[in-house]
Amino acid sequence: MAASTEGVISNKQVILKDYVTGFPKESDMQLTTATTKLKLPEGSKGVLVKNLYLSCDPYMRSRMTKREPGASYVDSFNAGSPIVGYGVAKVLESGDPKFKKGDLIWGMTGWEEYSVITATESLFKIQHTDVPLSYYTGILGMPGMTAYVGFYEICNPKKGETVFVSAASGAVGQLVGQFAKLLGCYVVGSAGSKEKVDLLKNKFGFDDAFNYKEEPDLDAALKRYFPEGIDIYFENVGGKMLDAVLQNMRVHGRIAVCGLISQYNLDEPEGCRNLMYLIIKQVRMQGFLVFSYYHLYEKFLEMVLPAIKEGKITYVEDVVEGLESAPAALIGLYAGRNVGKQVVVVSCE
Amino acid sequence: MAASTEGVISNKQVILKDYVTGFPKESDMQLTTATTKLKLPEGSKGVLVKNLYLSCDPYMRSRMTKREPGASYVDSFNAGSPIVGYGVAKVLESGDPKFKKGDLIWGMTGWEEYSVITATESLFKIQHTDVPLSYYTGILGMPGMTAYVGFYEICNPKKGETVFVSAASGAVGQLVGQFAKLLGCYVVGSAGSKEKVDLLKNKFGFDDAFNYKEEPDLDAALKRYFPEGIDIYFENVGGKMLDAVLQNMRVHGRIAVCGLISQYNLDEPEGCRNLMYLIIKQVRMQGFLVFSYYHLYEKFLEMVLPAIKEGKITYVEDVVEGLESAPAALIGLYAGRNVGKQVVVVSCE
Repeated sequence: MAASTEGVISNKQVILKDYVTGFPKESDMQLTTATTKLKLPEGSKGVLVKNLYLSCDPYMRSRMTKREPGASYVDSFNAGSPIVGYGVAKVLESGDPKFKKGDLIWGMTGWEEYSVITATESLFKIQHTDVPLSYYTGILGMPGMTAYVGFYEICNPKKGETVFVSAASGAVGQLVGQFAKLLGCYVVGSAGSKEKVDLLKNKFGFDDAFNYKEEPDLDAALKRYFPEGIDIYFENVGGKMLDAVLQNMRVHGRIAVCGLISQYNLDEPEGCRNLMYLIIKQVRMQGFLVFSYYHLYEKFLEMVLPAIKEGKITYVEDVVEGLESAPAALIGLYAGRNVGKQVVVVSCE
Repeated sequence: MAASTEGVISNKQVILKDYVTGFPKESDMQLTTATTKLKLPEGSKGVLVKNLYLSCDPYMRSRMTKREPGASYVDSFNAGSPIVGYGVAKVLESGDPKFKKGDLIWGMTGWEEYSVITATESLFKIQHTDVPLSYYTGILGMPGMTAYVGFYEICNPKKGETVFVSAASGAVGQLVGQFAKLLGCYVVGSAGSKEKVDLLKNKFGFDDAFNYKEEPDLDAALKRYFPEGIDIYFENVGGKMLDAVLQNMRVHGRIAVCGLISQYNLDEPEGCRNLMYLIIKQVRMQGFLVFSYYHLYEKFLEMVLPAIKEGKITYVEDVVEGLESAPAALIGLYAGRNVGKQVVVVSCE
């Protein structure tokens, strides 16, 4: 019957096949094609969107582990359903008066071509389109806010201070380093390849950078770059790097704990042995979640949009095309294969 | 000749025989009797004092380890010389205009009957003598300030919050718990014996307390006492307790890292495996040293002296008599043998 097939189209999806332990594999996900009625359910207060760009972010590993609801700050994915993550999308139909057809939004969506988003309160309407739309998965989205909040709100940075950033070429790290340079700090980053180290020094303007994989003694490496110690550490990795950093903190130093990616795929986290330096150096170590700071988003845009347009801040993305490339792109994060912010293009428009 | 022996008297001393690795033993110290001229050297700007009370404090273990000068926040003791620590003393002669004969002071002195103190800038003149003088090694001295600073300045406590204190019957812990009760918090302490647990509940007014040695599962114990989690943890011990606490912190919780006594005698510290909770619960963990806050001492006295006199705060000391008892008293701290603040009486006047 015409009625039943009207507006029904195919909808490519990336499904989480089953919950993951240890290092995730591409085969933990599966590309399937569902059919979707291109219409909101009767009475829905949600929005029907066409997904344009999807974001691969390190925290997503945590959602691939089976946990009781409420056991972590984000719940597990639903095995058998599409992966959920940040993305940029275009509204096709809206049951929420805050959005209308044609609006561009960023926020939590599905890894599929078309999604119905019911939690519209967490969506941001995109007001500025004179920048690449994909930036709303990165510099103008969650990772950008993460860098902003972690650096400015958590670290209380001051001009002239020494700043160390790990995973420094990633979506968040590259911004932290540039924010720190704009403020007049001395900034060193670590990353996992020569290519990334070159980016840090030549593209992002870090004062220096090193490849942690080529440093058998991280403590010695940090002493080389920070002979007088580290005032601020933006922590993305954890593990041995954190222990080495603790030994090199300056008095009244601050550590913003943004992520611990080196630990996400271990059955048992490595132990951190140098916490005594928190006392010895009177260090403040603070974990944070960007979700608690989204009320600062407009203030953040006021700072970062002009900086982008004036070329004071640059942003590097690692873009792959098509949902079929998404599983490999996500897995690549944990092996450090991405160079810059990992983005998946679903559709250009 | 009479002249050369004039004013020369015997001076009992506790000497650090040699630097210590692992768990310290009484035999690492030695009681000797030197002779001392009871007179300041010509032109000295120091003070000659008679020591009355000496303080045994956990941090002293760190000074028994041989380290390069400047490697920690306090330098190593000098092997072959008397132990140095906080004490209460009476000035016999002063080359510093801020002190005069007969003044009572507290601050860094030697483990001996008579000392010449040259670093007089770190001494406090005792102005209030209507409380036991030994209190200036504890509630009115460094440990009292430590509890005050750690709780009020580092933890930003609010009425109604839940507070957990480890090593809770010790010099610092017993005060933190009482400060928290005065503010209207719910307070639970852990300690290492039934006697100490009874003290916490019956003498110091903690809402509850437990013997950590009888809890095979510290996580389960904390969940029992804090079903809705811990807002503030006053950390004195480290190790397994810290890992269990991290799992039980509430969102935006705060951890004041005052000490990690469980780790002080280990060759290699235990690793802390639950730092991910700093992110998940957005926890701030902050180390501090009381030395940085001594400018608040008068403000502290204004709060604590009336509270003592009105019986709103109580203080338990574990007092031993004589320098010859001092080595065992110090070692006892690390085995948890003391019940309350460990004090050594050298002389009552």
